[in-house]
Amino acid sequence: MTGTVNPDRAEWDVVVIGTGPAGETAALYATRFSGLDAVMIEPELVGGECPFWACVPSKALLAPEHLLSAGRDLGGVRELLADRHLDVEGVLRRRDALVDHYDDTGFVGTALSWGVDVIRGKGRVTGEKTVEVNGRTIRARHAVVVATGSVPYCPDNPGLAEARPWFSRDVTAVREVPRRLLIVGGGLVACESATWLRALGAVQITMVERSDRLLPSQEPFAGVAVADSLRASGVDVRLRESVERVSREIVTDAGAGLVHGGPAVVLLAGGEELVVDEILVAAGRRPASTAAGLPERFTVDEHLNVDGHPWLYAVGDVSGESYLTHIGKYQGRVAGEVIAARATGAALDETPFNRHTDRIRAGSVAQVIFTDPEVGVAGLTEAAALARGHDVETVETDLSQVYGGRVQRDHYRGRAKLVVDRRTDTLLGATFVGTNIAELTHSATVAVTAGVPVRALWHAIGSFPTLSEVWSYLLEALDTQRMAWTSRS
Amino acid sequence: MTGTVNPDRAEWDVVVIGTGPAGETAALYATRFSGLDAVMIEPELVGGECPFWACVPSKALLAPEHLLSAGRDLGGVRELLADRHLDVEGVLRRRDALVDHYDDTGFVGTALSWGVDVIRGKGRVTGEKTVEVNGRTIRARHAVVVATGSVPYCPDNPGLAEARPWFSRDVTAVREVPRRLLIVGGGLVACESATWLRALGAVQITMVERSDRLLPSQEPFAGVAVADSLRASGVDVRLRESVERVSREIVTDAGAGLVHGGPAVVLLAGGEELVVDEILVAAGRRPASTAAGLPERFTVDEHLNVDGHPWLYAVGDVSGESYLTHIGKYQGRVAGEVIAARATGAALDETPFNRHTDRIRAGSVAQVIFTDPEVGVAGLTEAAALARGHDVETVETDLSQVYGGRVQRDHYRGRAKLVVDRRTDTLLGATFVGTNIAELTHSATVAVTAGVPVRALWHAIGSFPTLSEVWSYLLEALDTQRMAWTSRS
Repeated sequence: MTGTVNPDRAEWDVVVIGTGPAGETAALYATRFSGLDAVMIEPELVGGECPFWACVPSKALLAPEHLLSAGRDLGGVRELLADRHLDVEGVLRRRDALVDHYDDTGFVGTALSWGVDVIRGKGRVTGEKTVEVNGRTIRARHAVVVATGSVPYCPDNPGLAEARPWFSRDVTAVREVPRRLLIVGGGLVACESATWLRALGAVQITMVERSDRLLPSQEPFAGVAVADSLRASGVDVRLRESVERVSREIVTDAGAGLVHGGPAVVLLAGGEELVVDEILVAAGRRPASTAAGLPERFTVDEHLNVDGHPWLYAVGDVSGESYLTHIGKYQGRVAGEVIAARATGAALDETPFNRHTDRIRAGSVAQVIFTDPEVGVAGLTEAAALARGHDVETVETDLSQVYGGRVQRDHYRGRAKLVVDRRTDTLLGATFVGTNIAELTHSATVAVTAGVPVRALWHAIGSFPTLSEVWSYLLEALDTQRMAWTSRS
Repeated sequence: MTGTVNPDRAEWDVVVIGTGPAGETAALYATRFSGLDAVMIEPELVGGECPFWACVPSKALLAPEHLLSAGRDLGGVRELLADRHLDVEGVLRRRDALVDHYDDTGFVGTALSWGVDVIRGKGRVTGEKTVEVNGRTIRARHAVVVATGSVPYCPDNPGLAEARPWFSRDVTAVREVPRRLLIVGGGLVACESATWLRALGAVQITMVERSDRLLPSQEPFAGVAVADSLRASGVDVRLRESVERVSREIVTDAGAGLVHGGPAVVLLAGGEELVVDEILVAAGRRPASTAAGLPERFTVDEHLNVDGHPWLYAVGDVSGESYLTHIGKYQGRVAGEVIAARATGAALDETPFNRHTDRIRAGSVAQVIFTDPEVGVAGLTEAAALARGHDVETVETDLSQVYGGRVQRDHYRGRAKLVVDRRTDTLLGATFVGTNIAELTHSATVAVTAGVPVRALWHAIGSFPTLSEVWSYLLEALDTQRMAWTSRS
């Protein structure tokens, strides 16, 4: 679908480079009530990484296994699953349906329905309010938004890049499940991929993570729970381990446009040699900034402006603030509102919780990792809070005795932790680990974001029997802890 | 387990009549940091209705069907469930395990571990700080807490009570699933029971509800969604219908202590005659007040004191404030803290969000109904908010397009609604209907309870792809609605 734009047109109020969740949200919020017009520029699929190659297909691949995992631990259901395995073809078909068979017609239609134009091509900032695309120069009357996302990082171990490893796109688009797989990394992409590939039948999965735990940026107990579970499912999790070098024969059939890789031989830093059929590199991402004409290093201010250029915005992964769809959308909302306000000559709002200031950097990012068990995080971990200089009090509780867990699994296991700011007695962060904690996480996100005092949370009563009852357990444990301190002092 | 109390002992600081969640929580909170001692009196199972005959067994019976319902709508899992049905014996065994086979040893042990004594017998308030049990008189130095719960209400239609109908205890303790069943009522117990009994194999279920919808105290779309789903599963839902009279032959075998009921013939108000094997009466509950020595009608103040008696407290169902376990526990916490403070001569706290004042009556009750779809409610419905005189703005959105739903079911259906106070721009209530919205509800409970402004909720970003993203959809729709009003005015 092209040709939606008059080829001679060279000026819009707002030019957005990149059409992922962050870019399209910026375009929508900049235009929806302001009368401004906008164009979005996209070299790949309109809609971006998330709906085609990241969150959506990965969750599509994980959902069936989450359900079966719970069912295998539930009397009355376990019995009827006993001799049954995931229907791999059914799961892949469902993934294909959820990614619209890699067809972006729906996203293009949505943009047009908003009155936002779309140009297919590679956009690049070339000067003030100036963007080059397909050899043409386009001018923005008010603002240019860069929302080009991020690209996976590949470590420079000898032979690794040459071995044509898989990255996140390849693993979410999997068609033939590799029999033997090496996963380089231990973060979200690594842990989620190991979960679904094992469920889909990968026989030998080895994960190597440099640090001493999986999910190294989360509370330690989260990574321990995920490692335990992956190991129990047969994944070989190697901590404090890394790849030394790789050798693999690649046969390129130029005529057919195909690349065949034979088995790869991997030497680990610890000295062991592995033979695998594929290598997944999940070692982090980098902002896709330079290709879009941004410097390699830059910062955005609280209005998402690049280095103080009031006409240039960076939102989503490329801003370097986080690599999360929902945060990208949020930044798109803030930038869009700022663009609309400035274009109409309105002063930026400076009242509390205004829409012109990105508050996410204040520490209220939430994230759910769809491993089994799930990991839900809102705000800061204890380590992050300490690093920011907060005077921190923490409390933890086991989830296995909460009825909300016991009713849904015969052996519910999980853990929850709160990080409280002693000075203000408000919540800085919370982490939940367990089956079906994904939605529970938002209760903490609301509390962290709004600065709800702990004394108010005492009155927010979770419904029985849901997992949200854990809040009462946590606050009760906090009382006991505080009482113990009082008695001692 | 008896004999844990010296039979000559006749005085405790606190006497609690009833050991359900409300009573035991009051005993714990009154004693845990205060040095007070307490005794709890219980004629049935220590632990009360909820863990043995209400929330816990009902959710145990529902959990397997919830899982299979989601699985039958999930490509990759659907295929392997195609020819399989719930293992009824397995489900009942699991229910029995979760209710500890109706053995209260665990609850007695917990009470004793807190230092709280237990007397088996029927307690009754007979005078100021005076309770009679097993013919003995016990005195409370500081407080008597009545936590005797509630009993089901049976309408007085001719023949109904004589037909020995089932009530909530019978249906949660079900061993033989009736083939043909009439359910009188359309509230929570009626809807949940219909869901699990149909899943467990009841062939013909007829529900009769007097009003024009199921779940009549909830937002209308909740009852519509549940009725649609029950009908699709084969339940015959009759609205604006009621029972006229019942006739049933009951054979009592006094020697064996058994009662056998033959088929019951039921005449409906609409004129139709039904023949059923059992009748479940789920027509509401009444506080169990008079048997405990309380008047039939009384009120509790914000400290849970009965009619201004500072030594007498009523918590849980018997208080008449709600019939929810978590609210009972909350009232137990408040009453326990008040008792501890007063006994030690401390003034009651009057600061915001203090622990001595029941805030639930301020409208922040949350509730999850485990039908399929689930219904989660926090705070006030629109109708309840209007009845309280609030100037109300509402917004609704469809959940079927939220990725958090689409990834977990192939045909996710659901709806969400916010009720906003125009004057303060804070949330008065929220309702969510859909699969797995149980935990999402707590995000609204926190917002309603803490009075979080809508402008702050705008920054509380739900993780992608979870259902909590619906908050952004709702707030976006609210913007559009407000903008439309602005343009019109």
